[in-house]
Amino acid sequence: MNPGSGRVFATRIPVRFGDCDPAGIVFYPRYFEMINGLVEDWCGQALSTSFHDMHLRDGWGLPTVHLETDFLAPSELGENLQAELRVEKMGGASLHLAIRLLGPDNAERVRAKVVLVAMDLKERRAIPMPREFAIRANTYCGTDTAEPTN
Amino acid sequence: MNPGSGRVFATRIPVRFGDCDPAGIVFYPRYFEMINGLVEDWCGQALSTSFHDMHLRDGWGLPTVHLETDFLAPSELGENLQAELRVEKMGGASLHLAIRLLGPDNAERVRAKVVLVAMDLKERRAIPMPREFAIRANTYCGTDTAEPTN
Amino acid sequence: MNPGSGRVFATRIPVRFGDCDPAGIVFYPRYFEMINGLVEDWCGQALSTSFHDMHLRDGWGLPTVHLETDFLAPSELGENLQAELRVEKMGGASLHLAIRLLGPDNAERVRAKVVLVAMDLKERRAIPMPREFAIRANTYCGTDTAEPTN
Amino acid sequence: MNPGSGRVFATRIPVRFGDCDPAGIVFYPRYFEMINGLVEDWCGQALSTSFHDMHLRDGWGLPTVHLETDFLAPSELGENLQAELRVEKMGGASLHLAIRLLGPDNAERVRAKVVLVAMDLKERRAIPMPREFAIRANTYCGTDTAEPTN
Repeated sequence: MNPGSGRVFATRIPVRFGDCDPAGIVFYPRYFEMINGLVEDWCGQALSTSFHDMHLRDGWGLPTVHLETDFLAPSELGENLQAELRVEKMGGASLHLAIRLLGPDNAERVRAKVVLVAMDLKERRAIPMPREFAIRANTYCGTDTAEPTN
Repeated sequence: MNPGSGRVFATRIPVRFGDCDPAGIVFYPRYFEMINGLVEDWCGQALSTSFHDMHLRDGWGLPTVHLETDFLAPSELGENLQAELRVEKMGGASLHLAIRLLGPDNAERVRAKVVLVAMDLKERRAIPMPREFAIRANTYCGTDTAEPTN
Repeated sequence: MNPGSGRVFATRIPVRFGDCDPAGIVFYPRYFEMINGLVEDWCGQALSTSFHDMHLRDGWGLPTVHLETDFLAPSELGENLQAELRVEKMGGASLHLAIRLLGPDNAERVRAKVVLVAMDLKERRAIPMPREFAIRANTYCGTDTAEPTN
Repeated sequence: MNPGSGRVFATRIPVRFGDCDPAGIVFYPRYFEMINGLVEDWCGQALSTSFHDMHLRDGWGLPTVHLETDFLAPSELGENLQAELRVEKMGGASLHLAIRLLGPDNAERVRAKVVLVAMDLKERRAIPMPREFAIRANTYCGTDTAEPTN
């Protein structure tokens, strides 16, 4: 698969009261809800594949099979985070995403590598990503896949 | 349906870090996760009907259609709440529950009336509760159904 | 206090994957996270009082002390809900809100009455709402306040 | 610091309805709530340091600064997971935990490395772990720290 244009999918995510813990900062499991929402928005808005259609109509999903995350600085109630998603690498069934959440000061708060695998929800086994989906996803792949990533 | 023995189903629920907000007390939507868990435990442990079997094997559920809740005092991180469930009233498809969450001081923190309706998940329409389930649930009904419960 | 213009504060809330349960519809405690977010947006965007400043700078909050909710129809993954907030009644320390969540078909999904009370977070006792806040909130009050508010 | 006895802290975690997504399996951010709860229970039950006292009385916390997670198999509604925690490595301010969640079949569902850092909540800077806490935590450290743990 050829490297795409290396586009970045970006969105804004507010830090809500319900995201914050008694220390007044984001409770880290909520970052993963934000990240899941970012992937959901990317699929729906950029790849023309809403999670609704994917899961409930077409019977497949993109469960997360691996992730690595650095929490670099805390995020506070009321901040607006900049969320960015790039595709690092693609296999037939897998998507390696590089995700960053940035604070209002543009400094990194969270840096995550997330590996998703296309899965048939009924059979619960990995399947090749649908072709159209893969082609669109690939346009967010910025790394020449000849050179190994991670 | 005759009044049952008026038993109470009770369980303990810890207030976890992830339940608490920047004020250091339970974020109120999390009380409803606790209440949902209480109903889930009641069905599974007391009524021999796990939510797994109900939803995934037998195709029905008990969605909440109405609730009224008083939040009487805040609950703090680390407290162990006593959760109590009684059946106030039963219809063919509906369950009216009276739920209380008590603090370590035995004072009420949350008092809720919750109305559940048995629903066929595929058709998304109300159905009569399964007979065995209704009979078991009725043993938690403490109010003589001749006297109206609001 | 004079009756306000009865304005409605409205916003859009997407139903995300993480909001939905094994039945593919919104898990009801998540509706209260949506409702809390709506109140948060209203305070921040319409009343110039962000939850950050309220809680972390000024030391007060608006905990929910009572709510009544009807869940009229399920909401599905991927839907965009219209959320509406009106002030029904105001006391010195309390705000009675009428909240509706509407589906894409404009039908009501959730109807809630929510009572909030201004609270000093340190002392944990009710306090009069700050004057400027109350004046702005009152412009969302559609009921003639000549009829007594509790 | 000498290797401790290599004890394992273990607990059971039920997979609740509210943990599951439209595919009927655990929504992965909820695994991190489980893992946070496991750490919370370990601190409170095994290390005599409740999160309440740590955060609200003593003004320090253990935020997660790094994690690596493999999601090896999905977990279903109603399953009871076995959660296990070991200390892999300790620094003056940091705790490296190895965490596993196992299914009823004893197979690994989730495997996580979690790095926590003791932090002064007010100053928001790393601090040495309190001595008593560190001594107790060290008894869960099973790896001879002479041999590097990745």
